[in-house]
Amino acid sequence: MYRTHTCGELRLSEANQNVTLAGWVQRVRKFGGLTFVDIRDRYGVTQLAFNQQNNAELCEAAEQLGREYVVQASGIVVERTSKNPNLPTGDIEIQVTDLQVLNASKVPPFLIENDTDGGDDLRMQYRYLDLRRPSVQKNLILRHNIAQEARRYLCNLGFLEIETPFLIKSTPEGARDFVVPSRMNPGQFYALPQSPQTFKQLLMVSGYDKYFQIVRCFRDEDLRADRQPEFTQIDCEMAFVEREDVLQTFEGLLHHIFRYVKNYDLGEVIRMSYDEAMQLYGSDKPDIRFGMQFVELNNLVQGKGFKVFDEAELVVGIVAKGAADYTRKQIDELTEWMKRPQIGAKGLVYARVGEDGSVKSSVDKFYSEADLQAVATAMGAEKGDLIFIVSGEAAKARKQLSELRLEMGSRLGLRRPDDFKALWVLDFPVLEWDEEDQRWIACHHPFTRPKNAATLLTENPATLKAEAYDLVLNGNEIAGGSIRIHERELQSKMFELLGFSPEEAQRKFGFLLGAFEYGAPPHGGIAFGFDRLCSILGGADVIRDFIAFPKNNSGRDVMIDAPSSIDDKQMNELKLRLQEITKA
Amino acid sequence: MYRTHTCGELRLSEANQNVTLAGWVQRVRKFGGLTFVDIRDRYGVTQLAFNQQNNAELCEAAEQLGREYVVQASGIVVERTSKNPNLPTGDIEIQVTDLQVLNASKVPPFLIENDTDGGDDLRMQYRYLDLRRPSVQKNLILRHNIAQEARRYLCNLGFLEIETPFLIKSTPEGARDFVVPSRMNPGQFYALPQSPQTFKQLLMVSGYDKYFQIVRCFRDEDLRADRQPEFTQIDCEMAFVEREDVLQTFEGLLHHIFRYVKNYDLGEVIRMSYDEAMQLYGSDKPDIRFGMQFVELNNLVQGKGFKVFDEAELVVGIVAKGAADYTRKQIDELTEWMKRPQIGAKGLVYARVGEDGSVKSSVDKFYSEADLQAVATAMGAEKGDLIFIVSGEAAKARKQLSELRLEMGSRLGLRRPDDFKALWVLDFPVLEWDEEDQRWIACHHPFTRPKNAATLLTENPATLKAEAYDLVLNGNEIAGGSIRIHERELQSKMFELLGFSPEEAQRKFGFLLGAFEYGAPPHGGIAFGFDRLCSILGGADVIRDFIAFPKNNSGRDVMIDAPSSIDDKQMNELKLRLQEITKA
Repeated sequence: MYRTHTCGELRLSEANQNVTLAGWVQRVRKFGGLTFVDIRDRYGVTQLAFNQQNNAELCEAAEQLGREYVVQASGIVVERTSKNPNLPTGDIEIQVTDLQVLNASKVPPFLIENDTDGGDDLRMQYRYLDLRRPSVQKNLILRHNIAQEARRYLCNLGFLEIETPFLIKSTPEGARDFVVPSRMNPGQFYALPQSPQTFKQLLMVSGYDKYFQIVRCFRDEDLRADRQPEFTQIDCEMAFVEREDVLQTFEGLLHHIFRYVKNYDLGEVIRMSYDEAMQLYGSDKPDIRFGMQFVELNNLVQGKGFKVFDEAELVVGIVAKGAADYTRKQIDELTEWMKRPQIGAKGLVYARVGEDGSVKSSVDKFYSEADLQAVATAMGAEKGDLIFIVSGEAAKARKQLSELRLEMGSRLGLRRPDDFKALWVLDFPVLEWDEEDQRWIACHHPFTRPKNAATLLTENPATLKAEAYDLVLNGNEIAGGSIRIHERELQSKMFELLGFSPEEAQRKFGFLLGAFEYGAPPHGGIAFGFDRLCSILGGADVIRDFIAFPKNNSGRDVMIDAPSSIDDKQMNELKLRLQEITKA
Repeated sequence: MYRTHTCGELRLSEANQNVTLAGWVQRVRKFGGLTFVDIRDRYGVTQLAFNQQNNAELCEAAEQLGREYVVQASGIVVERTSKNPNLPTGDIEIQVTDLQVLNASKVPPFLIENDTDGGDDLRMQYRYLDLRRPSVQKNLILRHNIAQEARRYLCNLGFLEIETPFLIKSTPEGARDFVVPSRMNPGQFYALPQSPQTFKQLLMVSGYDKYFQIVRCFRDEDLRADRQPEFTQIDCEMAFVEREDVLQTFEGLLHHIFRYVKNYDLGEVIRMSYDEAMQLYGSDKPDIRFGMQFVELNNLVQGKGFKVFDEAELVVGIVAKGAADYTRKQIDELTEWMKRPQIGAKGLVYARVGEDGSVKSSVDKFYSEADLQAVATAMGAEKGDLIFIVSGEAAKARKQLSELRLEMGSRLGLRRPDDFKALWVLDFPVLEWDEEDQRWIACHHPFTRPKNAATLLTENPATLKAEAYDLVLNGNEIAGGSIRIHERELQSKMFELLGFSPEEAQRKFGFLLGAFEYGAPPHGGIAFGFDRLCSILGGADVIRDFIAFPKNNSGRDVMIDAPSSIDDKQMNELKLRLQEITKA
């Protein structure tokens, strides 16, 4: 037994007890004949005390300890003369009678503290030290707690956790698969799952009724910032459900997690159609912690001689409350920000509502004071507010204004990380037209059920709405799902719309089409992006800090140095050769 | 809402209620003007009743229903005139007023019942139907329950569930890795983990103190019967522990699982050294549900002129209680069984203890009655018992006799699947000599700590014992682990003993050696084979029935037809080519 207590456990109630602790040396301080050593473990920090007069040898040994040494110390718990109210163990210290160095440590390459001096690359290389920092430990403990509470909620509702395979079949569309060469079946490959989608649907066909799994998924995509090639989903499916059943079950899950992990009442999860979300926020994942809703201005501003607006499909604006004191320089800077290629706005029109109620805009020469007052009134702008207006092609203008809305929300302090608001976005389109490939692609995936399913067989594909839903938290899509197709004929029709030949559909998804012939029940489900959920609940933007061993933006683990070359024996066993790699 | 209740829920207390059920048609029976339909879901079976007189149209619709149709039925709960005491819902039936066919079904290719007429291949091809069988559902629900109880136990002890990466680095020794080509790093590969071993050790270095994960692992081995290329572990690690701490923690886990999943008191988990297990049972995973311990007979039987025994390194026997009535034919058959190449015994000596106390053996001409009585006495054989003796090289003789012991245990009904006994096997050798490669290999893995670790640097490697432990249940190794090396010097020495050059050790495990320089605590852990644990608790031998979507013995999923070829575009993106595959 290495310890009787952890480093976060001892209080005055343990005074005079003999205890043994083990942990890492956080720091060593010397005051005259006294030496104090703080030792740390996952549970907290405890102060060890050494007295030159009582035991000179031991005291000297303590002075020799370096940062991050692993030690074991035995002694008596005593009340401190000078207590530390900031530390749960701050009322006591250990008068050490025995000290063992269990392992020494080199000086760490960066500070093992919440605010570290280590850069990203160094911290990733020494991830095992980075993971010691209390802030990172807090993140992983939060992740643990969310996982356990999610399971508790789902198990209580009768969901079964069922494991689905990782070595499956490559069916490339949508994202790219990672593949795994099969040695026993030379020339053939498994694929790693992008999600257990078809397997969970089969489990519904098999009568498991309610399924979940907290499961790793894989996508071989070029990594945008903060995307990982492997990521975790809370994956769920239910049989004999309509959309309403699914929504209630999983807004319940979110409420449960907030209540038991954060002690936070999330409040109502409102619902909004995709069309409404696009119209009011220019986004299918609006951040509704703040208002700043879009107001469409075509009727008010067109036909007054301002060509930019007159020629625009859409003129749309937002009101930044109380921002009328933004300087010209600030607005110019925002305008430049909007014109960056990532956003691509042509420009930004603004108008200030002065303290006297007057409206001054950047397009005053085209509009009378009355025109501008009408705009301000329509937008609900009041004294001291700042109006922003963009225009152009509707989809683009909405996207640009959505970016500005989020930016202004941040600048005005309306997006606090400890404030949470969730909503459902419903009624997504089933299909979107891919201009490049000149074909329909599925907005969600080919298994999504259209509303009024029979219309799939008759109506214009562009107008079809899906029984799909996204759960949006603080402007992030944290979960998405749908009621599925469960009829073979309908599923075949969907594959056909998506440009699969019958043979191709059979080859790739024959098992699912087959399953639909043997009594497939109505079913639907959802998958939560677990990494993102953790980061939002942790009040952070970066999912990497909520993953124990993440990859960098090149998909590399720099600590273990993976991926790496494999030896010829392995290549030969797999019957593989490398192509000549020519430099571009 | 598709249903108000499940098919396993209604009782007399719900009589006269209007309800709606949904499920699969189990069977349709017609008695004169009455038609009865049993519908089934995961929760049970409920009888629907249709009356020709009340509603002829509905009754005819019910008669049309085929097996496995998915239906929704509404009606009134009524008390049955003829109750079915074998069914929890057997007191009631539903007088149906509305019936909807939600989906039709073709006639299934095999019976969806506990005893099915479907062969293995057919069942695997239609796994989604096989999974409907109540016996398979029971297995997967058991698996779910074991997983949840394991988590509950570990979480209550403060273990954190932390996810480790699946895309890691190939370090081929021991089993073969599955590899994953990296598109972003052409010519380089990830490997899928055979276990999270090094990552969980790093988590201990990082101070997480207690880690667990129920995690998929991968091994590209030629598949023996009932091995799967992907399998699940309950993987655990603890810091600041000695062996005793680990043993107590995880025999506690096993007790907890038995108590809460099986309502079974497992009793004491005894402990035995590897040497003792080999001596008493000829196996490092003895089935101790029954005795039949080995008795070594060299002293009693050598030097009496029987050359086979005289030349043997070991003569060793077991007593089959009450089996003296085995016929000559039965014994001959057992002898042939022992001589099969899989076991490889040269022969089998037997002796019967008659009802009169006399001992008659197959080697009577070499031994006097007194000699044989002495053997019987030494072995504790009594009237009516049958003695088996094998001889030869010690290791081989033990292995052969161990097989016979298990076989006799089975034949004598001493290995009941509802009887459970567990033990720890301790003090394994650290290393074994590989004759083929002429080098030491690790009995467990290179991270296992030797007892009296310092001796690693000085003693004969052959005599070193490890701080390793296996948990054995009913003759199966269900978990194995060890206290680990946590000092860089010792780990380097171990790599050296295993034939790694310093450069190779650094290239493959530099991150771990590095971590050991920054304050690695003493630590140790264990991993449970989760699939096997489930099958034993389920009273079955075959793990495949406890996995939702298993692979066959060629590593194929015949339902989805994986692995399969991938298209040229994917090969080119990965910069890979297939080697010419020549027929052997």
